[in-house]
Amino acid sequence: MSRKIRIGIAGYGNLGRGVEYAIAECSDMDLIGVFTRRNPSDVKVVNEDIPVYAFDELKDFQNKIDVLILCGGSKNDLPIQGPALSSMFNTVDSYDTHAKIPSYFEAVDASAKPNGKTAIISVGWDPGLFSINRLFGETVLPNGETYTFWGKGLSQGHSDAVRRIDGVKGAVQYTIPVPDAVDRVRSGSQPELTTREKHTRDCYVVLEEGADSKAVEHAIVTMPDYFVDYDTKVSFISEEELKNTHSAMPHGGFVIRSGKTGEGNAQVIEYSLTLESNPEFTSSVLVAYARAAYKMNEKGDVGAKTVFDVAPGLLSPKTAAELRKELL
Amino acid sequence: MSRKIRIGIAGYGNLGRGVEYAIAECSDMDLIGVFTRRNPSDVKVVNEDIPVYAFDELKDFQNKIDVLILCGGSKNDLPIQGPALSSMFNTVDSYDTHAKIPSYFEAVDASAKPNGKTAIISVGWDPGLFSINRLFGETVLPNGETYTFWGKGLSQGHSDAVRRIDGVKGAVQYTIPVPDAVDRVRSGSQPELTTREKHTRDCYVVLEEGADSKAVEHAIVTMPDYFVDYDTKVSFISEEELKNTHSAMPHGGFVIRSGKTGEGNAQVIEYSLTLESNPEFTSSVLVAYARAAYKMNEKGDVGAKTVFDVAPGLLSPKTAAELRKELL
Repeated sequence: MSRKIRIGIAGYGNLGRGVEYAIAECSDMDLIGVFTRRNPSDVKVVNEDIPVYAFDELKDFQNKIDVLILCGGSKNDLPIQGPALSSMFNTVDSYDTHAKIPSYFEAVDASAKPNGKTAIISVGWDPGLFSINRLFGETVLPNGETYTFWGKGLSQGHSDAVRRIDGVKGAVQYTIPVPDAVDRVRSGSQPELTTREKHTRDCYVVLEEGADSKAVEHAIVTMPDYFVDYDTKVSFISEEELKNTHSAMPHGGFVIRSGKTGEGNAQVIEYSLTLESNPEFTSSVLVAYARAAYKMNEKGDVGAKTVFDVAPGLLSPKTAAELRKELL
Repeated sequence: MSRKIRIGIAGYGNLGRGVEYAIAECSDMDLIGVFTRRNPSDVKVVNEDIPVYAFDELKDFQNKIDVLILCGGSKNDLPIQGPALSSMFNTVDSYDTHAKIPSYFEAVDASAKPNGKTAIISVGWDPGLFSINRLFGETVLPNGETYTFWGKGLSQGHSDAVRRIDGVKGAVQYTIPVPDAVDRVRSGSQPELTTREKHTRDCYVVLEEGADSKAVEHAIVTMPDYFVDYDTKVSFISEEELKNTHSAMPHGGFVIRSGKTGEGNAQVIEYSLTLESNPEFTSSVLVAYARAAYKMNEKGDVGAKTVFDVAPGLLSPKTAAELRKELL
């Protein structure tokens, strides 16, 4: 039995806490510490035995941590931290700004590769497990169409967009797949679907005192990119209701590949997630890929990687022979 | 643009024909020929321009074929052909006798590795894509249970078992998941399910003239391993009905991982296939993995492999940069 994989957590919000929980389920891993930009004594981790350090102390842990899991946000944290930390550590992150992934990959690769580190970027479920299923779909059934549906789930980005509107005190936004559209795709008929036909959006909004509900609703439903192309429902609720009824973070969705083979036989592949906690699930995926990052680095496979570069067997604590015997 | 991948098909039944169709959808592949143990002039391929050769001629094609797709059966063909042909060619096969996979792997590895060939065994959907999803399920959600359901679909092995009974002229058997069991698993409740609770079996049987239907039905429903642990329905039909209504080969099924994270949040991953043609789908998976076998061999990654050893990106004709931009 080889020694345990030593993990560090960089950033401790919902994602970092989820990683702490997920590592506790893995008998082949040790959590060395949590690193925070806040005052370490202000950070309450789940297991009080886990030490909390200041971010600046990370440089002293290069020989004490095998893989550092980056739990910061894609907007402000990872564009800096990914390239900076992958020069010192093997890393895994959940960078999810789809349009900027190619440039983020290049920046991390330029940092990790010359330093002999392995950095797996954009890990989670989308990007991540959904991406893998889009890839399997189009390679196995090249004559076909891929459909991705999200929800029912709370969208952080869209909730934030509503919160930025003048007069909004608090808000959450749920993305909901249109059942009829999902059924048509599942049937194998390969429909052409507009943005509006695929998803609806439900907003629950708490107004500032004296705010104009009509103006807020108008600002939401006409917002470019976020809402104008969708059928959006806006409900005004109390702060208490927001807290009591809308503080969970469910999410999920489907990737469906509908294709034809031979003389026209319909073949449908569906991958779906139903998640009571979106951040905890993403964290669980990060931890599995941390194991892969460690194994790839041991084999000398360095530089930036994505889920497309990781053989599934590397995710498991089991040996290749055990996997063939038990799971194939 | 590099040259096309040159493919050979060894064995031309339903699977071989499906491979021929699947290669026609791949612009990066050329089908060099079909190899048969029958008289080549008796084999009618879909595209008449594809040459058909005798199996014995394979030895002359070692420099003309990049990957040979083995389309024989697991019972009698592959145990001989897999080790024999993987000494001369990169190969992909659909060996599916789960219990014997470890020894088959060793035999193929001993043949492929010293000869510098790459041989991916047990490719298809189960073993294959379902195996990958069982692996992802238990690595991402270690605290949970995995459930595999098959069907509704025609089971070749069970149909054959019925056909071997005295007095049976023809038969098909459908495996059907029990809807209530599937619903309970999807709910995240992690039920314990017996064999009988998970699947039912429907048999459609044509009797020989004068055969005793009661005796045949008794022989079916009490058959060890195949039927005794299931609720089995037997219907007697005419030879004409068997031919007209039961000659398609639909199949499919589900792999569901139901797990908990954090303080008990339920997380459910479901992978499902709905296939109008089981052999054509398996063929399509084989062709995608033939591309991976070619790329792995080019990189010097030789010996026997399974789907657990293949990074998803290797399945695609696209470059890693294209995949990051388009699919991640």
